[in-house]
Amino acid sequence: MGRVTVRRPVRMLTADGQRRRPDALAAEEPLETRIGGRALAVTMRTPGHDVELVHGFLLSEGVITSPADVHSARYCDSVDDSGRNTYNVLDVALAEGVPAPDASVERNFYTTSSCGVCGKAALDAVKLKTSFPPADSGFAVTPAILSTLPDALREQQKVFASTGGLHAAGLFDTDGKLLVVREDVGRHNAVDKVLGWALLNNRIPLAQAGLLVSGRASFELVQKAAMAGIGLLAAVSAPSSLAVELAEESGMTLVGFLRGTSMNLYTGDHRVLETVPS
Amino acid sequence: MGRVTVRRPVRMLTADGQRRRPDALAAEEPLETRIGGRALAVTMRTPGHDVELVHGFLLSEGVITSPADVHSARYCDSVDDSGRNTYNVLDVALAEGVPAPDASVERNFYTTSSCGVCGKAALDAVKLKTSFPPADSGFAVTPAILSTLPDALREQQKVFASTGGLHAAGLFDTDGKLLVVREDVGRHNAVDKVLGWALLNNRIPLAQAGLLVSGRASFELVQKAAMAGIGLLAAVSAPSSLAVELAEESGMTLVGFLRGTSMNLYTGDHRVLETVPS
Repeated sequence: MGRVTVRRPVRMLTADGQRRRPDALAAEEPLETRIGGRALAVTMRTPGHDVELVHGFLLSEGVITSPADVHSARYCDSVDDSGRNTYNVLDVALAEGVPAPDASVERNFYTTSSCGVCGKAALDAVKLKTSFPPADSGFAVTPAILSTLPDALREQQKVFASTGGLHAAGLFDTDGKLLVVREDVGRHNAVDKVLGWALLNNRIPLAQAGLLVSGRASFELVQKAAMAGIGLLAAVSAPSSLAVELAEESGMTLVGFLRGTSMNLYTGDHRVLETVPS
Repeated sequence: MGRVTVRRPVRMLTADGQRRRPDALAAEEPLETRIGGRALAVTMRTPGHDVELVHGFLLSEGVITSPADVHSARYCDSVDDSGRNTYNVLDVALAEGVPAPDASVERNFYTTSSCGVCGKAALDAVKLKTSFPPADSGFAVTPAILSTLPDALREQQKVFASTGGLHAAGLFDTDGKLLVVREDVGRHNAVDKVLGWALLNNRIPLAQAGLLVSGRASFELVQKAAMAGIGLLAAVSAPSSLAVELAEESGMTLVGFLRGTSMNLYTGDHRVLETVPS
C-alpha cells in the first residue's frame, strides 16, 4: 500500500548534456473489483483510496446509491510470487436485497443498444439509469469563486508535483472550499474516488457541491457526475461534444477551459451567478 | 461522417465581461466493433478513420496481425430516430481460419488472472500475447531528431487547433519524418488509428518507426506499441510506473517529458544515439 509513486533511475538529456538521476513516477497498477467473489471489472489505477474508488465506480454504474448498499469491501488474499499481498483485488459483498450487476455489462449502453448505437442511444441509456434526477437544489457559484479553483486543486495535488503524471478531481462548495481532492493516473478513477468519498460520507446526492476535474470533460465524466446528482461540473480543459450534449440533457451546468479569470459556460447558466441579471 | 468537430454556442466569461460565441467541440461518439455480427467492444471516439481504428484495436488485442486476417470491415445499417445511418457500428468479418476473440475478454490479463492480479501478472499476460517479440531492427534516432517531433505533431493536429480537445499520435522514421498522424478524444484510440494505418499499409511489425504520443505514456499505450513491434515510444508527458516496467520487459525504448531539447530516457538507451559512445 502507499505505492503512490515509484522511484526509477532516468537518463535526462538537455541541451547542456546528460545526467542520470532518480525520477518519481506515478504508480499504475491494476485493480480488480469483485462482487461476491465474481470479477466485475479491472481498472488501471494509482493505488490508494481503493475502497472509495470501488464505491464511486459502483455508484457510477448504478449498482449502489448509499453506503448501506455495501455490506463489506475487503482486499482479497491476492499474493505475488514472493507471497506478499498485492492489494490489487477488492471483493465487495453487497447488502441483502441489492441486486448484483450483470458482470457482462461494463457500460449500460453497450447492451441496451441493438444496431443503433449512436449518441442518442447512449444518452437514452444513461438517462434511464440516472439515480438522482437533476432536482434543483439552488447550488450556484460566482465566476470569481470558480476562477480560484484550479490553483486550489493544483496546490493539493501532492503526487502531481513530484511526478507530473496524475489527473485530479475535487468537490467544492458554494464558497469555493475544496471538500476532497483525489489523484489518479486515470481521470475516471480520480472522479470515482471523489464520488466514493462522498458516498461513504453520506453526501449522495451531491446537491450542494460541484465537481472540478484537472483535464478534459468527456461523456464518461459527465455521466459519473450525473449519477451522483451533481449540478455543476467544471473542467480545466475542453469538453467533448457528447459531454456537452449529456450535460444539457441532464440539466447540469458545464464549465470548460477554466483558466485564470476566463472560462466557457456550455450549459446551465443559472448555476453561475452574475451571468444573468438577478 | 466527417463529424470531427461540432459547433455549439458558448458563453465566454473573462475579466472584461462576457459574450456569446460559437465554439468548436471535439466530436465524441460511441463506436461499436462487431466480429461476425457479435458485439466485441464499444469505445468513445472521435468519428473518422474508424476502419483504421478497428484494425489497430484488433491488432492491439492480438486478434489480427496482417490485413489478410480481415475479410471485410463495413459499417452496419445502424440508424438513428430520423432513419439516417449513424456510422457508429463497424462489423468485421475475419478471414477464414482466423479465430474470433472471446467477446468476454476485453483485456487479456483480465481473464488470465486468478486472484493474483498484480503488475507482474498483467505483464506476464501481455508478454504471452505479444505478436512481435522485440527483434532488434537497428532503428534509432538522435536526441536532435526527437526534439523536433512534438512541434511537428502539433502542426498536424488540425482539430486540436480548433477545439483544444484532442489527443494525437504519430509514427516517425529515423529522420524524424512523420509518416502518419491521427487525433482522437481518447489517446488509446489515436494510437489504434495509427497502428491500424500501419497494418493496412503492410507495415506491421513496425521495425523502422517510432511512436509519438501527445500526452502521457500509460501501460496500455506501451502494450499497444509492443503488439505492433514498435521499438521506441516517445511521450510529451509523464510515463506511469507500469509503462516503464512493461517497456523494460519488452525491450522497448521509452522517452518521456519530450519538451524542447529536454527529454527523459527511461529504458532502452541504445535506440537514442549519442547517449552512449559509439
